[in-house]
Amino acid sequence: MVMGNEGSLLAELFSTAAMDHLFSVEEQVQQMLRFEWALSAALETTGLAPRNSAAPLAELLATTFLTEQRAETIRHGAALAGNIAIPFVKLLTQIVRERDADAARFIHTGATSQDVLDTALVLQMREAMTLLAMDLDAMIASCVALAREHAETIVAGRTWLQQGPPTTLGLQFAGYALALDRSRTRLRNVAARSAMLQFGGAVGTLASLGEQGLAVSAELASRLELREPAMPWHSHRDTLAEAAAALGLLTGTLGKMAKDISLSMQTEVGELFEPAGAGRGGSSTMPHKRNPVSCAAVLAAAVRVPPFVATMIAAMPQEHERGLGGWHAEWETLPQIFRLAAGALAQMQQTVEGLEVDAIRMEENLALTHGLVLAEAVSAALAEHVGRDAAHRSMEAASHRAICGKRHLFDELRADPDVSRYLSEEDLARLLDPGNYLGSARAFMERALVRLNETEV
Amino acid sequence: MVMGNEGSLLAELFSTAAMDHLFSVEEQVQQMLRFEWALSAALETTGLAPRNSAAPLAELLATTFLTEQRAETIRHGAALAGNIAIPFVKLLTQIVRERDADAARFIHTGATSQDVLDTALVLQMREAMTLLAMDLDAMIASCVALAREHAETIVAGRTWLQQGPPTTLGLQFAGYALALDRSRTRLRNVAARSAMLQFGGAVGTLASLGEQGLAVSAELASRLELREPAMPWHSHRDTLAEAAAALGLLTGTLGKMAKDISLSMQTEVGELFEPAGAGRGGSSTMPHKRNPVSCAAVLAAAVRVPPFVATMIAAMPQEHERGLGGWHAEWETLPQIFRLAAGALAQMQQTVEGLEVDAIRMEENLALTHGLVLAEAVSAALAEHVGRDAAHRSMEAASHRAICGKRHLFDELRADPDVSRYLSEEDLARLLDPGNYLGSARAFMERALVRLNETEV
Amino acid sequence: MVMGNEGSLLAELFSTAAMDHLFSVEEQVQQMLRFEWALSAALETTGLAPRNSAAPLAELLATTFLTEQRAETIRHGAALAGNIAIPFVKLLTQIVRERDADAARFIHTGATSQDVLDTALVLQMREAMTLLAMDLDAMIASCVALAREHAETIVAGRTWLQQGPPTTLGLQFAGYALALDRSRTRLRNVAARSAMLQFGGAVGTLASLGEQGLAVSAELASRLELREPAMPWHSHRDTLAEAAAALGLLTGTLGKMAKDISLSMQTEVGELFEPAGAGRGGSSTMPHKRNPVSCAAVLAAAVRVPPFVATMIAAMPQEHERGLGGWHAEWETLPQIFRLAAGALAQMQQTVEGLEVDAIRMEENLALTHGLVLAEAVSAALAEHVGRDAAHRSMEAASHRAICGKRHLFDELRADPDVSRYLSEEDLARLLDPGNYLGSARAFMERALVRLNETEV
Amino acid sequence: MVMGNEGSLLAELFSTAAMDHLFSVEEQVQQMLRFEWALSAALETTGLAPRNSAAPLAELLATTFLTEQRAETIRHGAALAGNIAIPFVKLLTQIVRERDADAARFIHTGATSQDVLDTALVLQMREAMTLLAMDLDAMIASCVALAREHAETIVAGRTWLQQGPPTTLGLQFAGYALALDRSRTRLRNVAARSAMLQFGGAVGTLASLGEQGLAVSAELASRLELREPAMPWHSHRDTLAEAAAALGLLTGTLGKMAKDISLSMQTEVGELFEPAGAGRGGSSTMPHKRNPVSCAAVLAAAVRVPPFVATMIAAMPQEHERGLGGWHAEWETLPQIFRLAAGALAQMQQTVEGLEVDAIRMEENLALTHGLVLAEAVSAALAEHVGRDAAHRSMEAASHRAICGKRHLFDELRADPDVSRYLSEEDLARLLDPGNYLGSARAFMERALVRLNETEV
Repeated sequence: MVMGNEGSLLAELFSTAAMDHLFSVEEQVQQMLRFEWALSAALETTGLAPRNSAAPLAELLATTFLTEQRAETIRHGAALAGNIAIPFVKLLTQIVRERDADAARFIHTGATSQDVLDTALVLQMREAMTLLAMDLDAMIASCVALAREHAETIVAGRTWLQQGPPTTLGLQFAGYALALDRSRTRLRNVAARSAMLQFGGAVGTLASLGEQGLAVSAELASRLELREPAMPWHSHRDTLAEAAAALGLLTGTLGKMAKDISLSMQTEVGELFEPAGAGRGGSSTMPHKRNPVSCAAVLAAAVRVPPFVATMIAAMPQEHERGLGGWHAEWETLPQIFRLAAGALAQMQQTVEGLEVDAIRMEENLALTHGLVLAEAVSAALAEHVGRDAAHRSMEAASHRAICGKRHLFDELRADPDVSRYLSEEDLARLLDPGNYLGSARAFMERALVRLNETEV
Repeated sequence: MVMGNEGSLLAELFSTAAMDHLFSVEEQVQQMLRFEWALSAALETTGLAPRNSAAPLAELLATTFLTEQRAETIRHGAALAGNIAIPFVKLLTQIVRERDADAARFIHTGATSQDVLDTALVLQMREAMTLLAMDLDAMIASCVALAREHAETIVAGRTWLQQGPPTTLGLQFAGYALALDRSRTRLRNVAARSAMLQFGGAVGTLASLGEQGLAVSAELASRLELREPAMPWHSHRDTLAEAAAALGLLTGTLGKMAKDISLSMQTEVGELFEPAGAGRGGSSTMPHKRNPVSCAAVLAAAVRVPPFVATMIAAMPQEHERGLGGWHAEWETLPQIFRLAAGALAQMQQTVEGLEVDAIRMEENLALTHGLVLAEAVSAALAEHVGRDAAHRSMEAASHRAICGKRHLFDELRADPDVSRYLSEEDLARLLDPGNYLGSARAFMERALVRLNETEV
Repeated sequence: MVMGNEGSLLAELFSTAAMDHLFSVEEQVQQMLRFEWALSAALETTGLAPRNSAAPLAELLATTFLTEQRAETIRHGAALAGNIAIPFVKLLTQIVRERDADAARFIHTGATSQDVLDTALVLQMREAMTLLAMDLDAMIASCVALAREHAETIVAGRTWLQQGPPTTLGLQFAGYALALDRSRTRLRNVAARSAMLQFGGAVGTLASLGEQGLAVSAELASRLELREPAMPWHSHRDTLAEAAAALGLLTGTLGKMAKDISLSMQTEVGELFEPAGAGRGGSSTMPHKRNPVSCAAVLAAAVRVPPFVATMIAAMPQEHERGLGGWHAEWETLPQIFRLAAGALAQMQQTVEGLEVDAIRMEENLALTHGLVLAEAVSAALAEHVGRDAAHRSMEAASHRAICGKRHLFDELRADPDVSRYLSEEDLARLLDPGNYLGSARAFMERALVRLNETEV
Repeated sequence: MVMGNEGSLLAELFSTAAMDHLFSVEEQVQQMLRFEWALSAALETTGLAPRNSAAPLAELLATTFLTEQRAETIRHGAALAGNIAIPFVKLLTQIVRERDADAARFIHTGATSQDVLDTALVLQMREAMTLLAMDLDAMIASCVALAREHAETIVAGRTWLQQGPPTTLGLQFAGYALALDRSRTRLRNVAARSAMLQFGGAVGTLASLGEQGLAVSAELASRLELREPAMPWHSHRDTLAEAAAALGLLTGTLGKMAKDISLSMQTEVGELFEPAGAGRGGSSTMPHKRNPVSCAAVLAAAVRVPPFVATMIAAMPQEHERGLGGWHAEWETLPQIFRLAAGALAQMQQTVEGLEVDAIRMEENLALTHGLVLAEAVSAALAEHVGRDAAHRSMEAASHRAICGKRHLFDELRADPDVSRYLSEEDLARLLDPGNYLGSARAFMERALVRLNETEV
């Protein structure tokens, strides 16, 4: 049976099989079942339910609960009840009753729909965060490897889509690695914060458990290996929205990488390429093209996820002890964010792992402006003699003449008495060599790698 | 086989079966097939393909093309190719080749992936718009019926969540009907504008069709009963984003209705109720409650759709002849908007059709403030004698005394010489009767119904 | 005095002086005053206020009402009252009282804060729409002129940021013009729809005007030259949100233009340039650069406006007769959208009007792939002999060999017996000439210009 | 001179004077000046500039740099240059030159526009975060105080806007305090992370400083008391977007509080009230009303901020070493978020500090359902005898009869043999007393207060 996003024809482009599975309806229901099992077990332990109340639930947990028929029952029930927990619990109770009427009587005792839905979500999120953490580790390692490999690979720095002075590919990838590392830290923190039981009963007081509320809650948290909050958090959704935001920031950084790489793949630039592969990025009408397919998928995620983050934050003002609309708005939104973030991460990892680098083209491109991108180097040297403003004006004029005359800046400069008075031809040649104008690029990169090494520990 | 959103357990709560079907992957692929059939037929007609080239496609069109295995093939191919059209066309060509190698040679001739995807989308949208139009007609009719029925049902006007002077339920429903009617007009217009062929080939010039581009295009549009644009619109997405916005505006109006009705369903208000039904809106822990389930679903849509509209508009700046990421961002977004709008419309229609009105409670609630909500009426009458400011001050003071003393405003006013000098007890009693302070409510409602009647024609 | 956005240091980059003025607080208050004048005049006409009640307001209207001190009073009052209308009306009444106590007594009679705020907004919007319409006319004319001028200027079509077959600059600008024309139509429609009086009193019934509500309303609308709605629309915000969406769509199209032009300005592409000018687009550290400043401003708007549109739609579900938070959320949002849209339009107009086109560089860029971008042309010709799939495979292989061997596709193809069997050297040369592979580009462009001409009428 | 948002008539409603000042253009330019001073000082220290180069900048720093005329110059220059740093540096250099030509020559050496803009922003943010932290401390303290005071104040729990079993006002405020405390932690963390120098020169390599890049950078960071990053972060905006998200989460929690309080202020509920005050929340047409003005302002922020967060994340994919549009999109967005968050915090603080609680009305409201809200208590007790399902069915039936017959649940239950068989009248009376059905409310609240106490340390 194929359900939910796994059924989409775009699943492999926009998500990963593992993440789609974690947020499939089968898995959601399985985690809901796990909550009910743990609750029955906790009721047993605290003496509120007879021994073996949890046993039939443990048994059910061993196989996939959701069949197509049960899905139909829950789907139809959800439209009447307003959530899937009510028909699920009803169905579960019926099924267990056939095996063990006593056990059936204690299912869901003390809990409300939101307890089972929120805790199941938290369990799904915990596994999802583990998946992402592993993928992020691999991704950062790939970026670090590229940074090391290309520590000396010179490439045009580009600002406002215009070439500026040179930088190194190594520094660029160190920058990606640092940004991804910040995302890793955020995700670790929010993963820890969000792995928290939700158990409050009808309005968050566990009133129906009388004096035993805290005992059951503690036992339940322990069985699910979740932290127990000071008090139920059902109407405070900040931790979920924070998870959404952290995934949004990750997607933003991946989007920045995809933007850079796809621009570098342009026919007219040709410096970086997504890895080739049979059928990969082919165009139906342009047989020669290698489309930046992974970058496109990542950029799509970078467009789609920010509004989803807005949805999660906008949904936060939920009325009183359980909101109307706000809570419901989260249900399909948060899984989509995980799905898109995981997909973007996987696509970018493929790209970075197999990235093709054309260092010669980088050098050629840097030569396109006939030295203009190194005007700053000359300007700085000149400024030492005539001041920043005068130097700036001289260079602006020389650059203008170079552009109009389609001549090399070197030629313009050595012919300019305002320049040649201070800078010899040797000076100019040295100043116009990109390899001599990398400033602290190497030092910055090394510091970044050290920093990354430290956070690894 | 259950695929796409139809597999969701929330499908019936957040969408409708009909809309989910229209935007299912089966239906999408079916419309893509329809495009390919119409293209082959157009190539035949213009002499670019031999007779009977379209026949095998027509045959395939008679049954559902997408099997689980074909879905798997397309899904996997899409991850490599970057869209589902490439693997679909490949698969289709293989299948046709087995039946008619000649016909297979001409499949997709002149077209690019975006042509088939965009045109298939347009065909799906056309049917979706028709569905929505019918549902909107029914919805507006229900609102008009309620407006007529409750033309004289007095209810507290409420501003800032505080009771103000009275209005009528009839006027409120006339207001909903007018807003829905504006949405209907917008949807009609955008439905007409968006029912437009996309056919441009690789970069929008139909170059591979040589001199025959316009002829094939005209024939293709005619077969699909779509309008032909002046030129291909593939990189200009404004009409799609406009459709998204129009659906957003509809959802906003439905959200306003859901907000009003759910507030009126509060335990402490109890004026309006969603229709009851077996299992409808029951709470798993609170047996007596009737939850505003439909309103919750509609309000969730009203939270979720606006960010989706932002996604569609944000995706508009698509690079050159085909964008990177922006186009891809639309694929799952626009169907979600249709799905949520259709679901919200269906839920609200259920609610309005079966709405329970407690007019007695409305009257009781209006009496809660001991006349304060009619202070304005007295103020206005008093202002004729002492001016607006002085009247305002008198009433503010009397209201304050009434609140503090928990007395009826009538008693305060007749005891206040600044008031009783100008207004007799009879005057005050008349002024404090809600039915005497409805101003132009009836006239406005009648005008609204006339206006609605005119647009029906 | 400088207030509101006019005080921003970014006003000239992100907005226009005219639009900032229209949405300045001075102008807002002036329009509020205009409402109060028209209301007093309407009360006069209908006999509810004595003659000359409106006269002192007419007098005030002749000069700018808002002084720095009055602004301070209103600002402080707004924080207490929750909107600026309450302190404004209070202040206005005081000021008029000093001149004419009788006239002061009738100020704001029958109206509520939202009436004056909404109607003032509508008056501001009407002027703003007129401004935008004029700017759009000029913009479309510039695009049409460029389309005509460059009807034959060949440029690489680009999809997924990769070069594809050629198209013409003329066709591209015809496409922009058509999209802008659709925006113009939308804005015209929404301008007409939104130029609508809001006048409903406390809860939308005009109760305090007794039997005279409709008469005053009609007179008021007439004085302000606004249409009168069937009933007050204060709690239905769809027309305002529709205006926001229409401006969002315009900004999206402008963003697409800015994206295309800025990509074409890249150092490695160099085909199009924003006009140069003293100080324009200079970089503080890179003297030779010409930054796409206008494109940056437009792209910023294209990022910022969509979430603003989401805000306007998300704010629609406003409670009962006047909402809490939703209405307030509009106040600073809608002016920002107008401001950003006007700024983006002005920036793009500057760019298009002075656009520099380097047609030689376009030709050179098209040659970068050694014929690969015309592979489709050959493929199509070959397909006539061997079928689409076989042709596709041959071309894919030849393209691959050309890329690897850094040879021209022409050389690969004539050396390939699978190709040369069907296509002679002459055929190949013809097929690989971009000017011979423009398909219906010219015809499409002409149709677009005709279409534009029709809508002008 | 009044510039920027301080000029808005809504400044006091939506923001605070302190935050508006921090993000005023005067203050922004002042921090830019501070960067230039620190840079000149660092150049001095490292021997790259002569002694006393920083002195004229230090002098300028002592007064407000921005005059109306200078603002005009910068505003106009920004429209040409694309940012305000370029005209600012030019202007600054001119001004300094008149005093000390030598010092003028070294202004901005090594830096690029983005260095000064980003670092100035970081300095503004640091102060803003300090402001917010103090306000949050006060706010949390107020919530804790209310929680302690109302530890035993019983109020209806409400889910889906329907009354459920009781809870305590104390528990509700403990919940707010915990959520605000999580926001405080987030803001502390992001404040620490974002207080980071940006200094990279043209493309992030500090190339124009030759070997001295790191030395100048370290010195500069030290002068500004900012941390130095491993490498410049100019094209990685995740930390800024994270700050935006953290403020969004805070606003979301404030919005939840405003939603709850405003619902509790409804005429029909009347349990909680914003503090009264002269002119506060008055209505221009309804003299008796006390509008939830602060809640409205907070709810408006809760609608507006989430899309702003989306803007910040959507702007992250900035091209290469400096983006086009994305960076520019941040400039007016992040200040707006700070402004709205600060305003919402201040408004909610006013509300909580002066909150009026009507505990008697809470009790009366709980009695509205004639015992139905305690059905769960009876159901749980009954379930011990007959199982959860049977108990649920009994209670559903009894509740239904109670509603239809407008009788108290107590009467229905004691008359129901299926119930009275197990539960005596005494049992029923005890079970239907709200004070006996608070479960772990007290224990949860105490745990929350302990947790808050711990984080204070």
